[in-house]
Amino acid sequence: MQGPGDRGKDIYGAGDVRIENVPDSVIKHPTDALIRTTASCICGSDLHPYGSMKPEDRPARMGHEFIGIVEDTGTEVTTVKRGDPVVAPFAISDNTCAFCREGLHTSCAHPQANFWDGEPEEGGQAEAVRVPLADGTLVKLPVAPASSLIPSLLTLSDVLGTGYHAAVAGSVNERTRVTVIGDGAVGLMAVLSTKGLGAEQIILMGCHQERTDLGREFGATGIVAARGEEGIAAVRDLPGGHGTHVVIEAVGHLPAYDQALGVVRPGDVISRVAVPQYEKAPIGFGSLFRHNIRLAGGPAPARACIEELMPAILDGTIEPGKVFDANTNLDGVPAGYQDMADRKSLKVLVKP
Amino acid sequence: MQGPGDRGKDIYGAGDVRIENVPDSVIKHPTDALIRTTASCICGSDLHPYGSMKPEDRPARMGHEFIGIVEDTGTEVTTVKRGDPVVAPFAISDNTCAFCREGLHTSCAHPQANFWDGEPEEGGQAEAVRVPLADGTLVKLPVAPASSLIPSLLTLSDVLGTGYHAAVAGSVNERTRVTVIGDGAVGLMAVLSTKGLGAEQIILMGCHQERTDLGREFGATGIVAARGEEGIAAVRDLPGGHGTHVVIEAVGHLPAYDQALGVVRPGDVISRVAVPQYEKAPIGFGSLFRHNIRLAGGPAPARACIEELMPAILDGTIEPGKVFDANTNLDGVPAGYQDMADRKSLKVLVKP
Repeated sequence: MQGPGDRGKDIYGAGDVRIENVPDSVIKHPTDALIRTTASCICGSDLHPYGSMKPEDRPARMGHEFIGIVEDTGTEVTTVKRGDPVVAPFAISDNTCAFCREGLHTSCAHPQANFWDGEPEEGGQAEAVRVPLADGTLVKLPVAPASSLIPSLLTLSDVLGTGYHAAVAGSVNERTRVTVIGDGAVGLMAVLSTKGLGAEQIILMGCHQERTDLGREFGATGIVAARGEEGIAAVRDLPGGHGTHVVIEAVGHLPAYDQALGVVRPGDVISRVAVPQYEKAPIGFGSLFRHNIRLAGGPAPARACIEELMPAILDGTIEPGKVFDANTNLDGVPAGYQDMADRKSLKVLVKP
Repeated sequence: MQGPGDRGKDIYGAGDVRIENVPDSVIKHPTDALIRTTASCICGSDLHPYGSMKPEDRPARMGHEFIGIVEDTGTEVTTVKRGDPVVAPFAISDNTCAFCREGLHTSCAHPQANFWDGEPEEGGQAEAVRVPLADGTLVKLPVAPASSLIPSLLTLSDVLGTGYHAAVAGSVNERTRVTVIGDGAVGLMAVLSTKGLGAEQIILMGCHQERTDLGREFGATGIVAARGEEGIAAVRDLPGGHGTHVVIEAVGHLPAYDQALGVVRPGDVISRVAVPQYEKAPIGFGSLFRHNIRLAGGPAPARACIEELMPAILDGTIEPGKVFDANTNLDGVPAGYQDMADRKSLKVLVKP
């Protein structure tokens, strides 16, 4: 927070992530907190602008998953104080409005509620971050930044909550058979969450064996290493037939949605949590309507999931931090993006 | 069933419905029943081919809502017998498969399961109909064909069950505020059903005062007689704000879906029961995804609703038959189509 300015990651366009010295983050509102970042990571959704951002939109600060130490707080902040280790979810919320009280923090009605994408001067892939609505947004951690639990606790920022939301939005329970489409970090967290909710059958559709092996460790009962019509046929041929009750679409591209339509059971549900990279898609008589297929999901209210899921991490019941298969510092972030884009890394943890 | 053949309604193309002598319906399978129709009606969905059917597809037998007397039964039929008054839902099902047992008769897995549209030689707007899977499909009525309850019981074939399914698929309960888009017969049945499930606020969006007046009688607490942006703003300005928890889309055209997107509350649900006259529609970040809007609905399992809803008709709690504002005989059916298309009639009851 001192010196010539903080260092943070800016994206300049497709394939162009740079580390830069940027102005110090400072408290702007009495409800802000300043956080010195101790751990952050790269998200699958960061790869969308990495793959397609137009130069005229550049640059944008990156990163929306982080753990850090409170450095300073605005005068109205009461729930965290200087020196506290905290985790931040990927959406800023007041935790008091009607939507937050219902657990939908990603639709918080507060005028300052936002995604980190909407805070152009802040990002978690940086040395320091100004966190608006600190009382609503941040959650204090009961462990030190050097704890071996930090990778798992960092997944509370987004990827674990997102996988869990996928399962909850799909109403997974002990009687459901589930297909998870996509063996990326979100898909694997969806497997872990689905297992936690007791699903009797969990099919993971993915073509990268290291990832699907981790999926088995997280609870997948079967792997389908095929896409499109071949993958659909493989799922529909499984015991029970007619597809599975819940299909979690953890990719965000249209072919994955089409695959979901192919493997969902009549009367059941497709749950989407990866940001759709399309706006229009089939929902008429020939797709969703004919067999009463429901569509659910959206951005996960990670803030609501943190207190719900943290105990299972602290007591060792789950170890979601296993999704991090690479570590780097800020200087290594550009290479981390490329490794994730090339599928060399599953998910990269960043220690500034 | 005797003489030169039955008379039934065939559609030849857009705007071209003709009454014709057609071959006698006969028992083909041991699970069939032959019904002499005593009451049928014209459905809003019949108006779709009436508006757009291509001449090369002609002709098709019409009508999927009817009450009648069992004239004959195949050797395997056990639940109805000659002389029984019965009502038929708009889908043929065996009432025993896994989907039927779950109450999703419209996805019945039996090879002979079908919509009446899929039975080219049969239709309810006729003197007689062969009903496949009679044990699964037909429900015996406890009143005679001359009963004053017949119009209301006839709505069990489709329109009441469809409105009820819209409300159930939207998870309407005592705490929900509901918008119903469309003041046609399905929209009005959705109002009636939503009221029955105890919704605290029911906004009916419709521009035909005679229909919205009936909507008020069925339980609507407010009417918005505007469409598009103006209509959306009117609903969003209502107490509670942010739109309503449930939006029932009872029209089937894309502008109605767009209207539903405009008035649904974050985290809540759009329930569709009118057959979509589109295949692709917005479901990405800018429409459903951003605020975790769910999409539900499909063809109503009317068969499942019949036994559930019939008692309320028999004891006079509800009088859904009020949607019929015109009566005719078979000769009057072509004019009935045109009157419904011109919005002169809400729903036409046909007594062959």
